[in-house]
Amino acid sequence: MRIRFYNAKILTMESMDIIDGELWTDDDKISYVGKKPEHIPSFNREIDIKGDLLMPSFKDCHTHSAMTFLRSYADDLPLQDWLFKKVFPQEGKLTGERVELFARVALLEYLTSGITSCFDMYFYPGYFARLCAKYGFRGVLCGELTQGDDIETLEERYVNLNSFSPLVSYKLGMHSEYLCPIEMIRGVSELAHKYKAPVFMHNSETEKEVKECRERYSLSPTQLFDREGVFDYGGGGFHCVWLDDEDMRIFKERGLWAVTNPASNLKLASGIAPLQKILDCGVGISIGTDGAASNNCLDMFREMYLAAALQKVKTGDAAACPADEVLKMATVNGAKTLGLDDCDVLAKGKQADIIEIDLHQPNMQPQHDIVKNIVYSGSKQNVKMTVCAGRILYRQGEFFVGEAPEDVYAAANEEVKRIIDG
Amino acid sequence: MRIRFYNAKILTMESMDIIDGELWTDDDKISYVGKKPEHIPSFNREIDIKGDLLMPSFKDCHTHSAMTFLRSYADDLPLQDWLFKKVFPQEGKLTGERVELFARVALLEYLTSGITSCFDMYFYPGYFARLCAKYGFRGVLCGELTQGDDIETLEERYVNLNSFSPLVSYKLGMHSEYLCPIEMIRGVSELAHKYKAPVFMHNSETEKEVKECRERYSLSPTQLFDREGVFDYGGGGFHCVWLDDEDMRIFKERGLWAVTNPASNLKLASGIAPLQKILDCGVGISIGTDGAASNNCLDMFREMYLAAALQKVKTGDAAACPADEVLKMATVNGAKTLGLDDCDVLAKGKQADIIEIDLHQPNMQPQHDIVKNIVYSGSKQNVKMTVCAGRILYRQGEFFVGEAPEDVYAAANEEVKRIIDG
Repeated sequence: MRIRFYNAKILTMESMDIIDGELWTDDDKISYVGKKPEHIPSFNREIDIKGDLLMPSFKDCHTHSAMTFLRSYADDLPLQDWLFKKVFPQEGKLTGERVELFARVALLEYLTSGITSCFDMYFYPGYFARLCAKYGFRGVLCGELTQGDDIETLEERYVNLNSFSPLVSYKLGMHSEYLCPIEMIRGVSELAHKYKAPVFMHNSETEKEVKECRERYSLSPTQLFDREGVFDYGGGGFHCVWLDDEDMRIFKERGLWAVTNPASNLKLASGIAPLQKILDCGVGISIGTDGAASNNCLDMFREMYLAAALQKVKTGDAAACPADEVLKMATVNGAKTLGLDDCDVLAKGKQADIIEIDLHQPNMQPQHDIVKNIVYSGSKQNVKMTVCAGRILYRQGEFFVGEAPEDVYAAANEEVKRIIDG
Repeated sequence: MRIRFYNAKILTMESMDIIDGELWTDDDKISYVGKKPEHIPSFNREIDIKGDLLMPSFKDCHTHSAMTFLRSYADDLPLQDWLFKKVFPQEGKLTGERVELFARVALLEYLTSGITSCFDMYFYPGYFARLCAKYGFRGVLCGELTQGDDIETLEERYVNLNSFSPLVSYKLGMHSEYLCPIEMIRGVSELAHKYKAPVFMHNSETEKEVKECRERYSLSPTQLFDREGVFDYGGGGFHCVWLDDEDMRIFKERGLWAVTNPASNLKLASGIAPLQKILDCGVGISIGTDGAASNNCLDMFREMYLAAALQKVKTGDAAACPADEVLKMATVNGAKTLGLDDCDVLAKGKQADIIEIDLHQPNMQPQHDIVKNIVYSGSKQNVKMTVCAGRILYRQGEFFVGEAPEDVYAAANEEVKRIIDG
């Protein structure tokens, strides 16, 4: 399948300049990006972009997709009540089939927000992997090892899910220091060394988490993981709200990714991550939505706005965390965090993971600076098309994933009722 | 013109219950809201809402509409550079015609976000009033008196613009304590007494503003205005980030509205308003977007999310500032702030200022709680229709304002170039 997207503005993210031209795909890859050439070959399909913007798709670097089932179920509650009285009891009723159903809602939502890959940490990863392959979505799964699990399962999933589909990959990971005993942390470190692989986990999301880790080990979570060799082949942490200077030094030295989740951190009252300071330390930042139970929506525009705007109020400096940096976090850095080195920018030979931003909307006027317009004014409403691995999965409000969204919504609502009532 | 909207879920905001039924309009008014009755009369138009939600439209209680012309022109700069080197010099080049042109962009954007009324404070209010009447948008203008202006102009506008069109009204107002000498503040107070009218102004937006006012008068801005009798007939303040206990007592006693602008306060690093504390004091809160140069978009969904989520992180309590309260701020309280007492809820005899929220989107699934879905997950993408005074001004991405949006965008971009280059 060869598609020609013409009459476009293009932000390749190799540079931040915007060119007028076209982009061609050949199956899953980009075959041309640039000005309209003299000779135009034949295509299976030609799409007039009408002056809209083509750019790399967003990568959601931390989420729990199937948690859509608890969206708006238990908000406006203190964190401990939310987690122990509401979330955990309902999660106990999940099955693989249920995870797959609720993850469908998430995948549809990602597409409306221009997200083509997510770093999913949740139960029943095999079900999620199959769903991604079926929908044509690029799923990167993260080990979610927690107390009571065994390390062999993690290794088995690592081996199996990394050879399951070209659209699916799997990273070593564990839930967090506070849910993983020291033997488990050491076991993960052994796997990291065996496979020379990066490791990811929740890290320093709340002040309490860091305080209790220090009480147990006289070390922060980052320092503990580093002492145990967990980060010897890289990786990163989710949230990173309470990193201290020494933690940031380790992140820099080990090439770790700090994945920020600003909306979730606000809504669960966890705090505002020190992104400008992390940037100043030379640590790479990418962005995640976290799950829909805590955020509550899977929207990269909200996250980008918050990543920028919260730093301004946190540092007292309106110049902090500028828009260009934030757009890189949501795209290029996201791809690098996920090990998707061929999904980072728009260039010949790269994977065709592309979005079309509708510039013909009032919130994109005037066009002083399209990048700032996207980060500070953009919304899901501006996502006109989402392309993953060369397949158009969403365009002009319609989904092309092999099933009707209404059927997914109906099934999800029914199943949710069964869970809550059951 | 009589329109029947049927097959709808309806949130009247008289109560927070959602009913299945229909809503009818007769010209600018609502003629029926409730379950589908036995007998259905004839209509000029019948619209199947297909299970989406009808609710009162949003009211944007503080904005500078024409400032769209500086959107993304000068972000990521320290506040003083932004204001004195970038904003003020360009604003000096505005004319009435230019204000009207750039306000068109804003009106289109309000409609995409379900906003049917805004409280506009800017130069050349006569031009803005004419535009509102032309588009069918409900404009409430706020006096923007500032140093160098004369009090007679404020009175003249108050008299003339309050009798200009049923869609237009005008409130007494001045820019702020820091841009108004004490004689001017006293002049406004005299007008308030003469017309028994409420008065509005920027109030306690930055810590510096409050500190310098205390240096001048040994009083906070709120206390100064109150001492001068400015608030004897009510009114309110924009921003209210740095109100203290005594200020809140005055707000409560005088029945003043605290208009919060969370996105602008973040982006300009002004701070996070103490909304939960203001609520606890029994003071009414409504929401504004502020202008596009500081926000940068005119999106009530962003403001609602921030109003709720920022309080959670500010107070350290995930239960702070719940969704129901925030939805009231954006609708019912907004109408009351603007003196639009017949635009607050959906009920027979009220003005037909209505929006349709698209519930057939992944971000609205599952439907545990539609109000929480709107506040925590909603976006412009969910605004399917915006109706003002019984006229459909926006539906399914199309505008019905008497001119093509593309023409407005083109003219605005051209004129902006002339201003910046000129």
